[in-house]
Amino acid sequence: METVGQTLDIAWILVCAALVMLMQAGFSCLESGLVRSKNSINVAAKNFADFCLSSVVFWIFGFGLMFGATAGGLFGLSGFFFGEAASPFLMAFFIFQLGFCGTATTIVSGAVSERMRFGGYLVVATIISGVIYPFIGHWVWGSAAGSKPGGWLEQMGFIDFAGSTVVHSVGGWISLAAIIIIGPRIGRFGENAMPIRGHDLPFVTLGVFLLWFGWFGFNGGSTLGLTPDVPKIIVNTTVSGAFGGIVALALTWRLEGRPDVTMIMNGSLAGLVGITASAHIMNPLAAVAIGSIAAVVMYFVTRLLERFEIDDVVGAVPVHLGAGIWGTLAVAIFADPKSWGSGLGRWDQFVVQATGVGATFVWAFGLGFSLLWLVNRWVPLRIDPRGELIGLNVAEHGASTEILDLLTAMDRQRQTNDFSQPIAVEPHTEIGQIAQQYNNVLANKRPRINSVIGSRASKSTSIANSRPIILNSIT
Amino acid sequence: METVGQTLDIAWILVCAALVMLMQAGFSCLESGLVRSKNSINVAAKNFADFCLSSVVFWIFGFGLMFGATAGGLFGLSGFFFGEAASPFLMAFFIFQLGFCGTATTIVSGAVSERMRFGGYLVVATIISGVIYPFIGHWVWGSAAGSKPGGWLEQMGFIDFAGSTVVHSVGGWISLAAIIIIGPRIGRFGENAMPIRGHDLPFVTLGVFLLWFGWFGFNGGSTLGLTPDVPKIIVNTTVSGAFGGIVALALTWRLEGRPDVTMIMNGSLAGLVGITASAHIMNPLAAVAIGSIAAVVMYFVTRLLERFEIDDVVGAVPVHLGAGIWGTLAVAIFADPKSWGSGLGRWDQFVVQATGVGATFVWAFGLGFSLLWLVNRWVPLRIDPRGELIGLNVAEHGASTEILDLLTAMDRQRQTNDFSQPIAVEPHTEIGQIAQQYNNVLANKRPRINSVIGSRASKSTSIANSRPIILNSIT
Amino acid sequence: METVGQTLDIAWILVCAALVMLMQAGFSCLESGLVRSKNSINVAAKNFADFCLSSVVFWIFGFGLMFGATAGGLFGLSGFFFGEAASPFLMAFFIFQLGFCGTATTIVSGAVSERMRFGGYLVVATIISGVIYPFIGHWVWGSAAGSKPGGWLEQMGFIDFAGSTVVHSVGGWISLAAIIIIGPRIGRFGENAMPIRGHDLPFVTLGVFLLWFGWFGFNGGSTLGLTPDVPKIIVNTTVSGAFGGIVALALTWRLEGRPDVTMIMNGSLAGLVGITASAHIMNPLAAVAIGSIAAVVMYFVTRLLERFEIDDVVGAVPVHLGAGIWGTLAVAIFADPKSWGSGLGRWDQFVVQATGVGATFVWAFGLGFSLLWLVNRWVPLRIDPRGELIGLNVAEHGASTEILDLLTAMDRQRQTNDFSQPIAVEPHTEIGQIAQQYNNVLANKRPRINSVIGSRASKSTSIANSRPIILNSIT
Repeated sequence: METVGQTLDIAWILVCAALVMLMQAGFSCLESGLVRSKNSINVAAKNFADFCLSSVVFWIFGFGLMFGATAGGLFGLSGFFFGEAASPFLMAFFIFQLGFCGTATTIVSGAVSERMRFGGYLVVATIISGVIYPFIGHWVWGSAAGSKPGGWLEQMGFIDFAGSTVVHSVGGWISLAAIIIIGPRIGRFGENAMPIRGHDLPFVTLGVFLLWFGWFGFNGGSTLGLTPDVPKIIVNTTVSGAFGGIVALALTWRLEGRPDVTMIMNGSLAGLVGITASAHIMNPLAAVAIGSIAAVVMYFVTRLLERFEIDDVVGAVPVHLGAGIWGTLAVAIFADPKSWGSGLGRWDQFVVQATGVGATFVWAFGLGFSLLWLVNRWVPLRIDPRGELIGLNVAEHGASTEILDLLTAMDRQRQTNDFSQPIAVEPHTEIGQIAQQYNNVLANKRPRINSVIGSRASKSTSIANSRPIILNSIT
Repeated sequence: METVGQTLDIAWILVCAALVMLMQAGFSCLESGLVRSKNSINVAAKNFADFCLSSVVFWIFGFGLMFGATAGGLFGLSGFFFGEAASPFLMAFFIFQLGFCGTATTIVSGAVSERMRFGGYLVVATIISGVIYPFIGHWVWGSAAGSKPGGWLEQMGFIDFAGSTVVHSVGGWISLAAIIIIGPRIGRFGENAMPIRGHDLPFVTLGVFLLWFGWFGFNGGSTLGLTPDVPKIIVNTTVSGAFGGIVALALTWRLEGRPDVTMIMNGSLAGLVGITASAHIMNPLAAVAIGSIAAVVMYFVTRLLERFEIDDVVGAVPVHLGAGIWGTLAVAIFADPKSWGSGLGRWDQFVVQATGVGATFVWAFGLGFSLLWLVNRWVPLRIDPRGELIGLNVAEHGASTEILDLLTAMDRQRQTNDFSQPIAVEPHTEIGQIAQQYNNVLANKRPRINSVIGSRASKSTSIANSRPIILNSIT
Repeated sequence: METVGQTLDIAWILVCAALVMLMQAGFSCLESGLVRSKNSINVAAKNFADFCLSSVVFWIFGFGLMFGATAGGLFGLSGFFFGEAASPFLMAFFIFQLGFCGTATTIVSGAVSERMRFGGYLVVATIISGVIYPFIGHWVWGSAAGSKPGGWLEQMGFIDFAGSTVVHSVGGWISLAAIIIIGPRIGRFGENAMPIRGHDLPFVTLGVFLLWFGWFGFNGGSTLGLTPDVPKIIVNTTVSGAFGGIVALALTWRLEGRPDVTMIMNGSLAGLVGITASAHIMNPLAAVAIGSIAAVVMYFVTRLLERFEIDDVVGAVPVHLGAGIWGTLAVAIFADPKSWGSGLGRWDQFVVQATGVGATFVWAFGLGFSLLWLVNRWVPLRIDPRGELIGLNVAEHGASTEILDLLTAMDRQRQTNDFSQPIAVEPHTEIGQIAQQYNNVLANKRPRINSVIGSRASKSTSIANSRPIILNSIT
């Protein structure tokens, strides 16, 4: 039987779990808006499927690996097929942690978008949520569900309050591994490179707001109860995110002459990621510093990736890895040593924090790269160029759009030179109305077209080619 | 004066009520994304208007019919014009229940979209929220606000925790009645049938995430307090939804060769609907089974409707009715008989559950069908074919779009053969820029066009027809 | 050390703060959907940047001006650079209030959209959140953080529960000042005026749902704790919003022959704004009256602005100012005098309420207008007409879209008459596929085009002009 105070803690964890769950929607909006429209459905589908998948995996064995009784500080060994006979608190804790696992997993989906196969992505998502993430999670938070002594990093005194390293850096490292393996999108770099833009920035903005909203729970719930620290944690989180956005705004305006919208938002996200390691022990002034610097780190990592021609579609590496590492190290720079609870001096704590960063690099990037490289030999992660060109919406899901249907139908006509049939596009859409006009014209012109084609077939078959969306009058 | 524990219960109900309210946004995104763009505004408007309308109706008399002192277990008779002198708990309960009424109501809007008149839909929504829903609600949950002995089904021992039957099946049955009465969309079935696609799947994905988020409150709040069961309920809900999605993903990939995005999401929704009847008494393993089977049920009901040429635009019937019935029956299949509290054996409980399903069929489908049929004789529910073709955005709300304005203006020119005036499309849109070019060309060409038309009027008036969006050079 | 009851209050404030924060997302969706697509990114960026900016300003000095120890009832003088040594309750209160400041600020962004420069808007946002809002906030709520005696209006007995005046009217007055100073959009009024429509109404609908959801916290949290009044407050809020929507629906259908979608939503928003001043002391019947009348006020203020050719893109003035004033006055009309706690009679209370409205007019509109007028002399707030025509997405953020890239590239060709190069539009988009066809045709036709141009250069250079998106066959 819980006391009222314990019940309140459970309520708080559940509310925060719901907010963290909604971050999946935030990522989905953010990422599907930042790709070209031809890939938007694929990205959204990945975001949805990976949440389902990581939940299944985490329920079956991820939670047990992460929070079970430790095997030498390396991984847990109890709590698989979660649920039988767990206490209400543990049930709430499970739901909260499930959202964290989903977050680490879904970070990758944006970075690799526009060219990774759906099936390949599901394999990647399984690897993250089932193998990479729960281990690092155990190292840092292994005792959180009560199984002492927990993981080796926490035993060393490593501090990562809500997952700058455990969640965000892990997602960032695997993103980096994946985009190195699959390579940049066609046309992204090289001689005739063009900027590739997102197709729906208001949707991206909504996504960032949803993420920020979710971060109230992500950081606010990581106390695992409604402790007196919670309000301060949320103040720090908000202030860090706000300063991150403003610094990125100033930076991009100054260096590029324009306030780049995506950069402002990634600046805020970087601020939020950065404060995540230490929101419980900072004061707001330190949060201002952490958020501001996180935005600067994000900015320059973005430029660095571009210089190395590493194609991160949504900026997952700068935001989640760059700011994640910064935030993890900042624990030892800005916080009051007494707040650490590790008894270490500032330099020793820094070394411990750096050790955690290094271990995460080895496991998340090293193992992640190796596994993805192996998988890639077995099932290619990257879609074929044709699929990439027509877009993953169609290539992977058969999810065409009105305009694509039309273009396809017209293309068929052009290639066959057969204009005798109207094109069978669904006529009751806006695009369909254009097609209708095309068909009307075809109907009127068919005899003349044929005669024209006939009379000039030898010198110009290109008349067929010249019939694009709208067939015009031919005198 | 409430104790702190009671206050916490109220807080929990209010939070859950907010989450349930947000499901309205989820339905709106889901449904407006699954229709063609020409109907998207109409669908969103229906979702918004029906929430307002059902709130008004529920406040005036729905709540009283549902939770008032019972008249023979059939309906309630007190609590109309809710509000005077209600306790804080009852106030919170009212808000929570109002969201449920709104959910049952709005389920229909998606199924009937793209061809039902807005006015007709408001009548339908009034019937659901004021007549159909509160009665069934009384039968099953009539005593929830304290008016013993409550409805006849609950007295029999019927179990429907959070509304697999009361909310989802009711919405599903009325959807089925409505789409049978109004018939399929033009071009959906028959010889030249084309698949009709949604126009914004990332928006649909957002909608499903919002629904899932809302389900934390929908199921988590149905204990009407923060009891020790709440965390388990949310675990069950999440696990069932996740497995539903994965099963649907596997099924559609295997049977159709592609992971169908809409199916994955409907699979998760089916899982969520299925567990709703029993989330409080299942263990996670049973939740896995219920969610997985719910997705299978959803899949085959979808195919069944197609075979019978019943046109359910968003899959409301498979998701809310199919999985709702399944979830209601599953109570008697998977739960521990001791958990029922009805003292019945497994078979007897099954019969009671089936009785509830049957009674809901009679009242929601039978009465719903009859009322809609009568309404349809009096005010046709279906829009005329012309309105359906141009889309309900324009036909019902005058809510044109840039491209439609242009097409309309050009059509007018073509029909009148009068090219002497530039078309008056708002020039400062992307589409307007196309129009601008058209006008530029008109300005340059007007004398020549007229002479051309003049010289060839007899042999070809089709020149006018051949001026689609962009007027091209005529040599 | 807090008691459990106090901890619960803090939890409730934090949850409500999160909901209020999400209203930023609601405004962003609402406003970016109500503008033309060429300005949508700019609007979303403003909504995001002003939240960051107002948070920074409020943290540095806004909170101190508003809630610090009062200087004669006019403004506060402590609590700057918020955070050092604040209690958990005060921390939670800060976050909650920060959302309110952000709301007052962002109301303006919609009204001035489609023609205000981004930089100018940031100045405006700073003025609101740093100067205008905290002063009025201090007058009305100055003692809320414990610094007695608080502001001069609250000492008079002025009642504004959650900000019909403090938040909504302030935002509305500054919106009015700003749109008078910058003037209407090109083409909005005058002889050839065309209606200017929003480009994404389903997104607008989502925004309104998010706002409504946020209002649960906006009003529900303004008790600053989970008091027994909270459920009633939320019932009143919901009922008022629902009736506002239905009244606006009826009104617009009756007066204009169609259910205008935007009006329905603005009706609900007006209902929500109207009840905000008094949700804690009304009964639901009075809430029905307040919400219904708020919608009527909103409707006629909308028409009034149009008559005076004041161009409010999203209806911020009718909704936030019109309904805000109405709601503030309604406190003295509908509430039980005993509930006021001011000891005033009905007429005296009305005078006090009107005094608050007048003082807000003077400070928010008077000072706001003056400051904006001054700023406008120094940095023009309005973008140049060319920027307005091509849209602020491109003009301010370089955030082009696929179709714009194409149009620009084609325009360049036309102006230079040089068709020797294919246009360099990113080829792997839907629009890019159209461009591809164009290029294909160019490739086939180039010799012929050149010869045609050559042979007719004297009599017709317009052939270049006649090449719009798609190059057609030239016989």
